[in-house]
This record gives sequence, structure tokens and C-alpha cells, in this order.
Amino acid sequence: LSATATRPPRPTRAAYRRFQPIATRWNDNDVFAHVNNVVYYSWFDTAVTRFLLDTGLVDLRSTAIIGLVVETQCRYHAPVSFPDEVAVGLRVDRIGTSSVRYGIGIFRADDPLAAADGHFIHVYVDRATQRSPQPLPAAFRDALAPLLTAQA
Amino acid sequence: LSATATRPPRPTRAAYRRFQPIATRWNDNDVFAHVNNVVYYSWFDTAVTRFLLDTGLVDLRSTAIIGLVVETQCRYHAPVSFPDEVAVGLRVDRIGTSSVRYGIGIFRADDPLAAADGHFIHVYVDRATQRSPQPLPAAFRDALAPLLTAQA
Amino acid sequence: LSATATRPPRPTRAAYRRFQPIATRWNDNDVFAHVNNVVYYSWFDTAVTRFLLDTGLVDLRSTAIIGLVVETQCRYHAPVSFPDEVAVGLRVDRIGTSSVRYGIGIFRADDPLAAADGHFIHVYVDRATQRSPQPLPAAFRDALAPLLTAQA
Amino acid sequence: LSATATRPPRPTRAAYRRFQPIATRWNDNDVFAHVNNVVYYSWFDTAVTRFLLDTGLVDLRSTAIIGLVVETQCRYHAPVSFPDEVAVGLRVDRIGTSSVRYGIGIFRADDPLAAADGHFIHVYVDRATQRSPQPLPAAFRDALAPLLTAQA
Repeated sequence: LSATATRPPRPTRAAYRRFQPIATRWNDNDVFAHVNNVVYYSWFDTAVTRFLLDTGLVDLRSTAIIGLVVETQCRYHAPVSFPDEVAVGLRVDRIGTSSVRYGIGIFRADDPLAAADGHFIHVYVDRATQRSPQPLPAAFRDALAPLLTAQA
Repeated sequence: LSATATRPPRPTRAAYRRFQPIATRWNDNDVFAHVNNVVYYSWFDTAVTRFLLDTGLVDLRSTAIIGLVVETQCRYHAPVSFPDEVAVGLRVDRIGTSSVRYGIGIFRADDPLAAADGHFIHVYVDRATQRSPQPLPAAFRDALAPLLTAQA
Repeated sequence: LSATATRPPRPTRAAYRRFQPIATRWNDNDVFAHVNNVVYYSWFDTAVTRFLLDTGLVDLRSTAIIGLVVETQCRYHAPVSFPDEVAVGLRVDRIGTSSVRYGIGIFRADDPLAAADGHFIHVYVDRATQRSPQPLPAAFRDALAPLLTAQA
Repeated sequence: LSATATRPPRPTRAAYRRFQPIATRWNDNDVFAHVNNVVYYSWFDTAVTRFLLDTGLVDLRSTAIIGLVVETQCRYHAPVSFPDEVAVGLRVDRIGTSSVRYGIGIFRADDPLAAADGHFIHVYVDRATQRSPQPLPAAFRDALAPLLTAQA
């Protein structure tokens, strides 16, 4: 389905640093018996949030800064269908003053090539106002560092 | 939330050619009481499909070619929350041999600036095999033409 | 599809007191090109919450008591498919000390008979602890009264 | 949250015959930081469909009869929140001429008592017309039998 000459190749698992297993659900499938394009983003979201919770730096009830999603993108390469199991590959592409760009790849079963890949950008803001960007704390940067790659 | 110097400005309604009203649902909201980033893509999907059905060119049960989604992207500018009503602005950015790129803007209530904007790319393939790209029929191109803009 | 002799008949619109219009979304449809059974409950939820917000008694950010959903049920009578528009009929079946049981009917387009019907039970609890049931305030009972029917 | 004297007790795992693990997703959570009531039904649906696919009796693309969902119900006993893992307990309550009623329990992490429980009723119909109920084939009954309990 590579429609354009400029479309980048399908990433491999080596392009990611952490993998989150996700089981498809029956109602992820659409009329064409494939997982609907929208659902992939719920997997992106889940993989990023699981990483943040697992680091222990973010607690959903008490955290003073929250990550607002400012941009997401996904390229779809090959179908995924319920009851497939997928692994969501996660890496960090860039750590800015207040922002983090994650690179994400969706891998179906044992396929070495990504069924889809994309990115997800968080900007950290004050939780109460949800407005002014806040600098990422040092502990946060330290937790992100192991996922950083030279890809972007 | 414009995190980077290169982030394009929020589009206005004038950038779109057709508007699909969508009502938010209670479970569109996430923990932060805003519509979750994933949900916007279900609105993209709905606006494109409604347009295709309304043209009469696509019938979900009988169409010989189907549009596979190969890429989507969304930039989030301002929050939307249930029970907001939104209008999904739609335009056509590019008509390729087998592909169509739609530009999409999400407008909340009476806000003249988009709360989010992005794109959605379909590649048309044979329905049975869901593989080889198929040229867009002339009638299809004719239906898309009124939505075409010079934006991309 | 009335599988059992005891299955109650499809309700009419006269059985409900308030109607919430809802537009289907493309990804509401499942593999069989009908709205998936799960989605109906998001319409139940949306109709109840819209009613509560519209009364002005509930504010999602400040309310001291919250309604926990303790039981829901739906019977499916006839298919609904994107791009159908539906009306969600709402009534109040019973007002208890701390609980409210709503009766709900899903009506497709101009169909006089419900495509689905069911119920939805809220128990009100203290927001902070989300545990001990709280008596419904008088203003709350007054707002519910016009929707009360003799059906249950 | 047992609001009424007649509310049945929370089932234990012993009441079910098969368990399907399901991982919560970030956008399963609602404004109150608990999995939204609607989402539980997607787990019901997924557990039943996984069982049917795993038996080998149902193939989503070729099956001549399909199970239409005619009734579902859920009682909610205790909250579940992302990133909880849940196990969906499944049993068969009744096998009719053309219908199957499943009993379902949602168990959070290591909790011996169900966080929610309910039922799910399929009526089998001809796939092409999706109307007239069809008798369950003998092989189908044989596959259901090991899940049958004396509960209903």
C-alpha cells in the first residue's frame, strides 16, 4: 500500500526500546473485519501512559503537571484483526524543554515489520490551569533517557 | 500550547468546504474532563465516510473498490469537552491516481478557529483482495473536485 | 428476533418523556455492518448525563455527590447502522432514597418502535469517598419528577 | 453499593468455567478515573467471541449462521481502573433451540469476588438474511456443553 515514492519503509522492532503487549477486542474490528484506524491511537495512548505510570513519576491523581497531547500521527502498513495480539513498540524521539515526542510502532503477532507506525507528542502544563508549558523535571528526563534514540 | 516555532497557525472555517456536525458523547471525555485525543479520529473517519455515502458513489455493501486508510494525523490546539457540539470541516488536499488526501478541521461550538486539525489519506484497492491500488473512477474524481483547495 | 415467549414487546415513543438525538459514527458499525451492541450503552450514558447537565443540578467539576452506575441492561430488537440518526428516549422508572432507575429506548430515524430498550441505574455517593450512598437532594427529586412514569 | 435488598451477592471465580485475560486501556477510564460502564460490555463481547473462535466452530468470514446479540446486562460492584488487568469469567447459563445465554463475571487482578457480573444472549440466524432463527448445530452444542452450569 505504499502509495507514494516518499513513504518511509516499515520499521523493525529494533527501532523501539520498550514493548507493551495489547490484546485486540472484538469491537476493534470494523466492517471490513480489520481493526479500525482510530483504535491504533488508543494503543499509542495506552503504551505511553503505561510507561509513565511504570516509571513511578506520574500518578494520575496527584501529579502537578500533566501531559497534553498536541500532535499524533499514524501510518498504516498492514492490517491487524481481532483476535490478534499486538506489541506496541515505544521510543523517545526528542526531549524538549516542556515536550516529549514518542515514536511508536505496532507489531502484529510475530511479524518483524511494523503493521503501523507513528508518533505522539506531549507538552507538559500546569495541571490546575492546563495552560502554561512547564519545564520537564530532571527526574522525568532521567526516566525518558533510556528510550531516546538517534532516529529523529 | 504551540510548543514549537514551526507549528502552523490554527485554521479557520474558510479553509474547509463542507461541515459535518457531530455531538460529543459522555464517554468521549477522559480523566481530565476533555475529549480524549483518540476520539477526534473517529470524527475524521465519520466525516469522510458521510461525505462518500452522501455522494452516492460509495455503497458499503456493494462497492467494488474500498478506501484503505494509509495515514492520519491530528494537531490538537484547544480542548473540546462533552457536551460540546462540534463541526468537522472537510476539504480535499490532493487527488492522486489511487489516493485521496483530505484536510480536516474540528471546530467547537461557535469558535472561528479550529480546536484541532489534521489529515486523512485513503488509497483505493480492490475490495476482494484488499491489495492492489485501483485508479479512482472518473465519477469519483468529479465528486471530490468541489472539495479541492489550493492548500496542499 | 423475539426468542422467548416472555420477551416484552418493543416500546413506542409514548413510553418516554424526553428525547436526545444522537448521530451514529462510522466506527460504531461492526463486522456485520450494524452498530455493535456495546455502543448502545454509550448512548444510554450520554442521554442520562445530558439530562443531568441540562437540569443545571449537576456540574461535572463541582458536584458533591456523583451517580455511580450500578446496573444497566439492553434488549436489542432491530438493527441500527451508520449513518442512521437515532433518538434516545428517556424516562424515570423509579426514584429511591439514593438511587434513580432510568428507562431508555433507542429509536431509529422515523421508526415508531424502539430498535432497543433497557434501563440504567445510578446510586448517588459522596464524591470524595465514592462509597456511602447519599440521599437525593430535594431539588434533584424535583428535576426527576417530570420524567417519572407509571411503567415500573 | 448494594442499593437494594434483592441485589444478588458478588459471584466468585468458581461460578465460571473459562477465563479470558483483558488489559485495560488508558481511554477506558472516564472522568472519575474508573473504567466507564460501557467498556465492560466490550469485554463481554470479546470473551464470548474469543471462545467461539477458539472452538473452531465459528469463522468470521465463512460461517453460515451468525449470533445476533438480543440482550445484555451488567451489574457493577466495585471499580476497575486503568492500568488494571482483568479476567473475564465465562459460563453457559442456558442452551435453547437457537439461542445461548452466557453468564459473565469481571475479576480485577487477584480479587476473588467479581467487580461486575452480567449476561449476554445470542440468537443464531441465517447470515444472509439476518432474520429467521436457526437451530444450533450439534457440534455447536457439544462445544458449549463444558461451560454449562446449573446456575440458571
